[in-house]
Amino acid sequence: MTDLNAYMTGVGESARRAATLMAAAPTAAKNQALLALARRLREAGPVLAEANERDLAAAREAGLEAPMVDRLRLDAKVLATVAEGCEQIAAMPDPIGEITGVKRRPTGISVGQMRVPLGVFGMIYESRPNVTIEAASLAIKSGNACILRGGSEALHSNLALAALVGDSLDDAGLPRDAVQLINTVDRAAVGLLITMPAHVDVIIPRGGKGLIERISREARVPVIKHLDGNCHSYVDAEVDIDLAVTVVDNAKTQKYSPCNATESLLVHAAQAASFLPRIGMVFSAKGVEMRACPRALALLSQVPGDLRRAATEADWDTEYLAPIISIKVVDSLDEAIAHINRHGSHHTDAILTTNHMNAMRFLREVDSASVMVNASTRFADGFEYGLGAEIGISTDKFHARGPVGLDGLTSMKWVVLGQGEVRS
Amino acid sequence: MTDLNAYMTGVGESARRAATLMAAAPTAAKNQALLALARRLREAGPVLAEANERDLAAAREAGLEAPMVDRLRLDAKVLATVAEGCEQIAAMPDPIGEITGVKRRPTGISVGQMRVPLGVFGMIYESRPNVTIEAASLAIKSGNACILRGGSEALHSNLALAALVGDSLDDAGLPRDAVQLINTVDRAAVGLLITMPAHVDVIIPRGGKGLIERISREARVPVIKHLDGNCHSYVDAEVDIDLAVTVVDNAKTQKYSPCNATESLLVHAAQAASFLPRIGMVFSAKGVEMRACPRALALLSQVPGDLRRAATEADWDTEYLAPIISIKVVDSLDEAIAHINRHGSHHTDAILTTNHMNAMRFLREVDSASVMVNASTRFADGFEYGLGAEIGISTDKFHARGPVGLDGLTSMKWVVLGQGEVRS
Repeated sequence: MTDLNAYMTGVGESARRAATLMAAAPTAAKNQALLALARRLREAGPVLAEANERDLAAAREAGLEAPMVDRLRLDAKVLATVAEGCEQIAAMPDPIGEITGVKRRPTGISVGQMRVPLGVFGMIYESRPNVTIEAASLAIKSGNACILRGGSEALHSNLALAALVGDSLDDAGLPRDAVQLINTVDRAAVGLLITMPAHVDVIIPRGGKGLIERISREARVPVIKHLDGNCHSYVDAEVDIDLAVTVVDNAKTQKYSPCNATESLLVHAAQAASFLPRIGMVFSAKGVEMRACPRALALLSQVPGDLRRAATEADWDTEYLAPIISIKVVDSLDEAIAHINRHGSHHTDAILTTNHMNAMRFLREVDSASVMVNASTRFADGFEYGLGAEIGISTDKFHARGPVGLDGLTSMKWVVLGQGEVRS
Repeated sequence: MTDLNAYMTGVGESARRAATLMAAAPTAAKNQALLALARRLREAGPVLAEANERDLAAAREAGLEAPMVDRLRLDAKVLATVAEGCEQIAAMPDPIGEITGVKRRPTGISVGQMRVPLGVFGMIYESRPNVTIEAASLAIKSGNACILRGGSEALHSNLALAALVGDSLDDAGLPRDAVQLINTVDRAAVGLLITMPAHVDVIIPRGGKGLIERISREARVPVIKHLDGNCHSYVDAEVDIDLAVTVVDNAKTQKYSPCNATESLLVHAAQAASFLPRIGMVFSAKGVEMRACPRALALLSQVPGDLRRAATEADWDTEYLAPIISIKVVDSLDEAIAHINRHGSHHTDAILTTNHMNAMRFLREVDSASVMVNASTRFADGFEYGLGAEIGISTDKFHARGPVGLDGLTSMKWVVLGQGEVRS
């Protein structure tokens, strides 16, 4: 066994032991750890700054672009935000131990379900060190243990943050190993982490599509993931045009990089002539390139500027994460639904409509993690949904779907309460 | 591409198309198909009998043992039972389209969750042809499509049953391909079925541990499964001895073959001297071999007969599915919980106790799909839990856990209802 193997096995065994203790931990102790962590984050300025500065200097030296360097930065504002996140999670109800749906059966037994932690989750992420705190705080509240593998470029920052987490667990009498950060940049550690079913129950990767595809392929445990977010906004035949312009504008342009930004606009033929020139003006003014089907292109011909292009077949499948949008005119709700189910990534899709039956059909038949009526796809987010926090987004149908909060890190087991009943 | 490849791809594509239609199918049509199926099962006597007789004759000719041949038999009683099952499922509420937990957010959007089908499930099973109807009826009600792969020894019976299912789907205007039976006994079909993520969303295997382990290892989609059921009954330090004798007797001896039968008995030292001789008499009278730790063995010394053995370490990990039970004296609730979590199979475990705190600790800390207080482990079953039917049992923590009914074949997607809200 190599040193790395021995190290990872040790981490896994420690995590499993800690998970058993965390599953039985009192709510008060978990909240105490979270509040201690918030306090320590606010007070740890100089120590954290030194560690963070090492990562920042290395990044600048390595020639990373300014936005990448910025994402590494742990300034007072970032720390205040993550500290506040810990306090918010402390204030949320404890999901663990909740017993629901208890029903008396004809045999006399009462049957219900109890929410319990999943056990140990492994989290693989890049760049932003605040993810370390987000993952740790969700693990603590949900009674899980976690093994964190951050980006090598943030290692010193992550180690400093993990030490604060460990101290906060100590403060509350909880096992320090409930949150462990892998302390090596050796890439083989990821391969080991995702193939330890005895020690790790689920893997949550965040990062580029290539990384996530590789992890999904090689993992020997379930993976909570989304690969991309080719999200659609569909303007129906019956629609409030003003509302649709406002919502589609926001869905595309409020921010270009998130996975819940709209990448493709479908417009019913009955509204295309009224709607497309108006949204075209908005996109043109904001510098959004329009890749349009022939009918849409014709209707956009009066839009000023030179941002109109003919869409290729590949555009319908593309997540741009940039000021680009694909635009297609469709002849029916059926065509819109079929297009989304075929070309979308089952992430988030919205209909703009005033017709109730069409709204309900869209909600039911579009096979995506989030389906919306008359709202911006940008709302697909754990905070916006009221989950308090988000460990990731799932585009799978299994277990957790869409934004994953505390509940997604839990499992429901059956509880049977009897008075000596036997089966006949 | 071989013929088998082409055939399986065709089956997969047909299933995916059918799944889209089933997801949008009206409740009334699904119930109509289920009631038509019940009627057809009751009326199909001669045609079914002929197909079944072919399988029975082949089984006898192949020298199968009588119990194995019996499991293949589709007599009037078996058909009446499965027909009744279809009617019961028709009478249950439709899980699909249910919208729960809708809450208004500060932004103005309303956020909730809608229950939708998983899509296509593949079911791999052996022997008993009535599983064909159970799987088909659950698929229809839950709005999924399914691909069924039964045992080769039941092929003619299964084909005849699948034809009845297809006719019943026709009756209701639903796609015949919603339930497809693989019509070849080529074993390579299983390997293809479990590696078609584009066409199959989840695999549900039933059968021997070896088969299920192989499927889990090789599948490229999630698998809902349990490998074995090493279930425990634990007699606590504070207990109603009469109640404990009745329940443990039932948990072990009511039937030996099911996965929810108790295989291991743990007894707190404080009750061992009172409890073990009494349960030993019961086991002895029923011919149940007792494999006991040294302390238990000593306390069982007065039990008549020669069914007492010294347990080996391997006994703690063994699912006997036979009139054999392992017995261990423990010194604390902690020891009992640790033993169960280490040696059990996370299936079903019960505590017999009059102490409330111990009951709650057992429920919370035993990491099993079903945890019980003062009830027979034999109750771990979809019908007993009120699920109406059971497609299988899961000992995983991911997605469905314990008996899997209609809900386990569904997924919750997020629905967002707005009036033109945008994200700021």
